[in-house]
Amino acid sequence: MKFICEKNALVEGISIAQKAVTGKSTMPILGGILINAKNDTLIITGSDIDLSIETKVKAAVLEEGSLVVDARLFGDIIRKLPNSDVEVASISENSIEIKCEKSKFNVIHMDAEDYPSLPSVEGNKQLNIAQKCLKNMIKGTIFAVAQDETRPILTGVLMESKDKTLNLVSLDGYRLALKKESIEFDDEVNAVIPGKTLNEVVKILGEDDDVTLTFNENHVLFTINETRIISRLLEGEFIKYNSIIPEEHKSTVIVDKNILLNSIERASLVGKEGNTNLVKFDIEDDTIVITSNSQLGNVREEVNINLQGDGIQIAFNSKYLIDILKIMDEEKIYMEFTSAVSPCVIKNIEKDNCTYLVLPVRVSTR
Amino acid sequence: MKFICEKNALVEGISIAQKAVTGKSTMPILGGILINAKNDTLIITGSDIDLSIETKVKAAVLEEGSLVVDARLFGDIIRKLPNSDVEVASISENSIEIKCEKSKFNVIHMDAEDYPSLPSVEGNKQLNIAQKCLKNMIKGTIFAVAQDETRPILTGVLMESKDKTLNLVSLDGYRLALKKESIEFDDEVNAVIPGKTLNEVVKILGEDDDVTLTFNENHVLFTINETRIISRLLEGEFIKYNSIIPEEHKSTVIVDKNILLNSIERASLVGKEGNTNLVKFDIEDDTIVITSNSQLGNVREEVNINLQGDGIQIAFNSKYLIDILKIMDEEKIYMEFTSAVSPCVIKNIEKDNCTYLVLPVRVSTR
Repeated sequence: MKFICEKNALVEGISIAQKAVTGKSTMPILGGILINAKNDTLIITGSDIDLSIETKVKAAVLEEGSLVVDARLFGDIIRKLPNSDVEVASISENSIEIKCEKSKFNVIHMDAEDYPSLPSVEGNKQLNIAQKCLKNMIKGTIFAVAQDETRPILTGVLMESKDKTLNLVSLDGYRLALKKESIEFDDEVNAVIPGKTLNEVVKILGEDDDVTLTFNENHVLFTINETRIISRLLEGEFIKYNSIIPEEHKSTVIVDKNILLNSIERASLVGKEGNTNLVKFDIEDDTIVITSNSQLGNVREEVNINLQGDGIQIAFNSKYLIDILKIMDEEKIYMEFTSAVSPCVIKNIEKDNCTYLVLPVRVSTR
Repeated sequence: MKFICEKNALVEGISIAQKAVTGKSTMPILGGILINAKNDTLIITGSDIDLSIETKVKAAVLEEGSLVVDARLFGDIIRKLPNSDVEVASISENSIEIKCEKSKFNVIHMDAEDYPSLPSVEGNKQLNIAQKCLKNMIKGTIFAVAQDETRPILTGVLMESKDKTLNLVSLDGYRLALKKESIEFDDEVNAVIPGKTLNEVVKILGEDDDVTLTFNENHVLFTINETRIISRLLEGEFIKYNSIIPEEHKSTVIVDKNILLNSIERASLVGKEGNTNLVKFDIEDDTIVITSNSQLGNVREEVNINLQGDGIQIAFNSKYLIDILKIMDEEKIYMEFTSAVSPCVIKNIEKDNCTYLVLPVRVSTR
């Protein structure tokens, strides 16, 4: 194998493929990236089996071939080289030479044959969506995936399409996040994608062009320009989230999102003690009074609102409200309440593209 | 105590005083900051005994008084308030009320009487120097203070003035850093200031105006505009550093600093294995050839130089060279060599304002 490639193009390719290299695998070869040089193109691949990322970089290929190099060392070396052409060539059975201006490295490599082959994901279920739109949907749901593995299915985001609508749903037993968008796609899809995968997908998604999602029974493939991201799907049935979202409510609050967010953040400062993060809402007339107290002191915040329906007293873990308010994108939002022990539902006012739900915390009568 | 203060001014004052609050003290009161409201001014103080920082903030003082509040909680609350006037008032024997627009906090406070009094540092030994200049001198030496406490005196920087010259010197057994500047000051000063103190001083020093340094036997006081930083000095005699810096040398290399730095950084990538960080220099004619190897591979870098004197082969811990080259401010530098086991001396070419010294690593004959 021998190729010449512009340094910055190579750095970008390595950086993308490297996102799938966790360094936690027990297989030493997965600490490497596979470089396949063919037809004026390098295909660079990183993988931890569950998630694989493959990307293409233009290069002058002088001798075709494939090999595996340590991802971190190779990436660090290429990043530190001057902005110039880089020549990479295999010079013996187990080493490559990297040359750039007055720098010359010899680095050991591993065999391409030992690198696991990527699952093939082909099928008719191909869904196109604007990269920017999918990025927004992932960001709007990924924070609510379960962090613990007690119910593995909840560590993923449900991606569900039907009736030309795409829904992304995550929930962790305390809150639920649902984002939806209209799409041009007739098939039904129902797949749970690991949160870990989507964390990397979000970093690779850009602002322009579409991304294509291809599903088969066990895998999903994201095609983003010259990059292919292949991830296994989580096995099992996702929770029937529709039955969790209340259809009716007794009171609706219209509130300025940022003012509410700032007030809750301040209130949570005294409530942090003992990690309860408890904030109490007293909603009446045109005001939410937010209070919190601990041995450090107490706080009272007032937020102007527009209330339709009855007043209510309800308490929350401030962290869950803050997570939601931080990623919502409209200035004015709805909060829907039914009782002190029923979930609160939060929505945008303008666009009907998201539904958030937070369970209240039961507190002793005040 | 009762005062009204503009939020951002209060945040700035707290942030400065808080730098002395380490949260590691066994005295709970030192987790707090002392606020003294008097004559339209707040004096805010933080301390960990070794280092104390006191700063002034303009405020409308409605009722004079002093108290101590938890530094982190109070700081976090004030930072999160809207950009508006903040009213702080003691409302009971052990609590204060903080009001700002629609936010109201009650927070417990501690007694000002329990707060330790700051050492008084008065004396005739007052040295004025431009803040920017002192900042530069500290940055140019602080990286070389000893990190371990086996010789406590080496965890500080020697500040030495004589013959209208100020020297800052640090050394850790492997390298030495010396910065010097001309000053208008006739007294002799010889004080070792803890590195920890200078780390905080650097953050507070600005670009304009002078800083005044006042020394007494055990303490130094930095007066920076409205802020006073008081630190104990390290006890004991600093190493006679002059005897360490070689007066003569056999070879001088003139080299472009950034090209050398980049080459050493690249070479160190393969040398990291086993933490030896070993890079070898082969200096001859108009080139330094830098090599490094480990089980990961090997590297060869060439750097153009101008050599006066004999060629030499010498090896270094790359980390020590990188630290020095990173903070030097001229493009062209001198490196002076005598033998493979003698220290290398590094200097600017234009300004004679710094001397760096690095011990070589002895390696077996190549």
